[in-house]
Amino acid sequence: MRRLAEIIIIGDEILGGYTIDTNSAWISRQLSKCGIETVRKQVVSDLFPEIHLALSRVGNDTELVFITGGLGPTRDDRTKNAIAEFFGGKLILNESYLEELRQRFARMNRPFNENNISQAYVPDNAEAIPNRNGTALGLHFQVDRKEWFVMPGVPMEMKGMMEESILPMICREDANAWTEISLRTTGIFESALAEIVEPKFENYSDLKLAYYPGPQGVDLRIGGPRGERLEAAAAMLREFLQEWYYADGTKDLSALLGEMLVKRGMKMAVAESCTGGLIAHRITANPGSSEWFLEGVVCYSNEAKIHYLGVKQETLEEYGAVSEATVVEMAEGLLQRSKADLTVAVSGIAGPGGGSLEKPVGATFIAAAMKDKTVAQQFCFFRGREKNKEFAAQAALNLARKIVQELV
Amino acid sequence: MRRLAEIIIIGDEILGGYTIDTNSAWISRQLSKCGIETVRKQVVSDLFPEIHLALSRVGNDTELVFITGGLGPTRDDRTKNAIAEFFGGKLILNESYLEELRQRFARMNRPFNENNISQAYVPDNAEAIPNRNGTALGLHFQVDRKEWFVMPGVPMEMKGMMEESILPMICREDANAWTEISLRTTGIFESALAEIVEPKFENYSDLKLAYYPGPQGVDLRIGGPRGERLEAAAAMLREFLQEWYYADGTKDLSALLGEMLVKRGMKMAVAESCTGGLIAHRITANPGSSEWFLEGVVCYSNEAKIHYLGVKQETLEEYGAVSEATVVEMAEGLLQRSKADLTVAVSGIAGPGGGSLEKPVGATFIAAAMKDKTVAQQFCFFRGREKNKEFAAQAALNLARKIVQELV
Repeated sequence: MRRLAEIIIIGDEILGGYTIDTNSAWISRQLSKCGIETVRKQVVSDLFPEIHLALSRVGNDTELVFITGGLGPTRDDRTKNAIAEFFGGKLILNESYLEELRQRFARMNRPFNENNISQAYVPDNAEAIPNRNGTALGLHFQVDRKEWFVMPGVPMEMKGMMEESILPMICREDANAWTEISLRTTGIFESALAEIVEPKFENYSDLKLAYYPGPQGVDLRIGGPRGERLEAAAAMLREFLQEWYYADGTKDLSALLGEMLVKRGMKMAVAESCTGGLIAHRITANPGSSEWFLEGVVCYSNEAKIHYLGVKQETLEEYGAVSEATVVEMAEGLLQRSKADLTVAVSGIAGPGGGSLEKPVGATFIAAAMKDKTVAQQFCFFRGREKNKEFAAQAALNLARKIVQELV
Repeated sequence: MRRLAEIIIIGDEILGGYTIDTNSAWISRQLSKCGIETVRKQVVSDLFPEIHLALSRVGNDTELVFITGGLGPTRDDRTKNAIAEFFGGKLILNESYLEELRQRFARMNRPFNENNISQAYVPDNAEAIPNRNGTALGLHFQVDRKEWFVMPGVPMEMKGMMEESILPMICREDANAWTEISLRTTGIFESALAEIVEPKFENYSDLKLAYYPGPQGVDLRIGGPRGERLEAAAAMLREFLQEWYYADGTKDLSALLGEMLVKRGMKMAVAESCTGGLIAHRITANPGSSEWFLEGVVCYSNEAKIHYLGVKQETLEEYGAVSEATVVEMAEGLLQRSKADLTVAVSGIAGPGGGSLEKPVGATFIAAAMKDKTVAQQFCFFRGREKNKEFAAQAALNLARKIVQELV
């Protein structure tokens, strides 16, 4: 039987929409890896009656409750008091933690004041959870046949507590536990993917199959009891979908590409027009990317395409900046002028302006070049400037993957 | 009196954490501009009992309810049926919308099937809300002295409905309505900002002042009855905080910079090391940025700094790639070699590797250059690779703003 969880987010910044809640999504994904399903979420303000209402609404079906936000040192932070009171506990000063806090502040040369002392109070009906990345302790209540975990709203602090203390406590190694394997694909629409996958999956009707489309492609999730059968279904799909499958879980395509290049001792460079730096930004988001990424050129103007990449004036005049001929010259020019073993180039019309009947907004050309091979592809995206950039960047990284894997 | 709203998000992708909910934050921010405060949010799955539970939990204090998700054409999309049933209505085929849909599909050469017909059914106790960006109609129920608005979960469709139909309906032009003005600042910590703002704000204690720190700076929000007094307080702070204030609302610093450059007929170029393309990506996120942005160079390797920007080998050897001398040469080199009137350059240690005692992870140098002036600044960020890139990009755009405004 799957275990069920609920999440309560406390805080006016989230409620007012000034901060986007990413914590609850992260928590749910971690839980699903342990076979725990999130069934409800609530977002409430930091007032006592609102916090109490949210706590009272947690369902009888729920075994685990995760609460974030409102554990800071200021007056706004009422979560600890509100929950302790709701469960009939009272706050007790933890002398040894107070001393630890004083020493930490002294080491950092920061003044220690009354507000900070409040951080050392712990409800007498809860266990404290250590916080390696901040001063607010987490709390663990066991009430009403449920486990209640209270964590700070700062993502780094919440994640640290989950990974170091909470997940090891709740993730049982149950041989039959429900789990999911997520296969990331790109370059194929959800409907087309379903059409080819469904017949192949007929023998696995005991497993659950779901499609999650996003700007970077479609994630295919296979759910079922942990074990060989689930692994076999995943292995079959990885092999069958080779052209589109690139990684398990939540790994970014740029990270996968980096691993492939490091393994082969290759380095890459990028030439971007319509993606405007997004490909380089995604690549350099990976720690250690300087090992395999040399340089990027964002050439918005024709002059820049000529100056940095040696694109010919005639090519630009004859075919236009958004053309296969131009991206091929961009990719090959960068390969010659840099020390890279692999280059990708993108040119397109991101919109909203600049489109024509022949080359509408979203028309995008992508090329990838290696020493003895250049490949190019044409796309037409139509989702608005922001999404067009995202789609084009993903398509470019995918073409780079495919040229390295000799799939094009 | 402020009007109160609640939001209900329906969908397993959001609940499971595979999609991050940005809709509810956007809705709340739009509502707050009309003086409507969001007091609770719920996220539930698309099962009938869960949807009914969420509807039954909407508070007596709430006047407006916004529901998104689950209006698509597939079997998973149960929102319309569940809500119609909850309010005792039944679905009726809207013949004229069915005909419109058929024609739309024909124009796009897409097959029209049984699933799509479901989109033309409307509950007999609701008004349909047109959807310019998709096929699912929105719904407007008036039940239990509340207005209930049901919208698709696709952000573009939801936003279109809100802007075109719903906000004009609910945003009353009430002279005394509560409203907020948000002033964006960057380059100053929340505590330091509060220290200088609080004394200046003493005369405005009837207004509400709140600080919202984020990776791009601190947003200062002033709340109160719409009118002259609120405007005066905002004008006072804009003037007083000139060094850090850059825009109202949610405008990105890169958009503001673009407006300044277009007004002055200037064009810019960027040279990025540790920000790895993020500055160019933010700039090119603005429609029409090709009018004021020429090119960007992402030079991760020393060779690229020498080759593209003419940084001297000796400078790199004597001071290192992460140094004031190097960023100054990067900015000035790009200014000479491009047709830009303004350049910015960044070099830093994004982490997690590469730090030393003298130059720890987060050490970042930024320079901005114009024809007769170059300025440089040193920072030390310490929030992990992703945030370090964000902070550095924002600091670079801010230095560009300040050199153009002659504030440095």
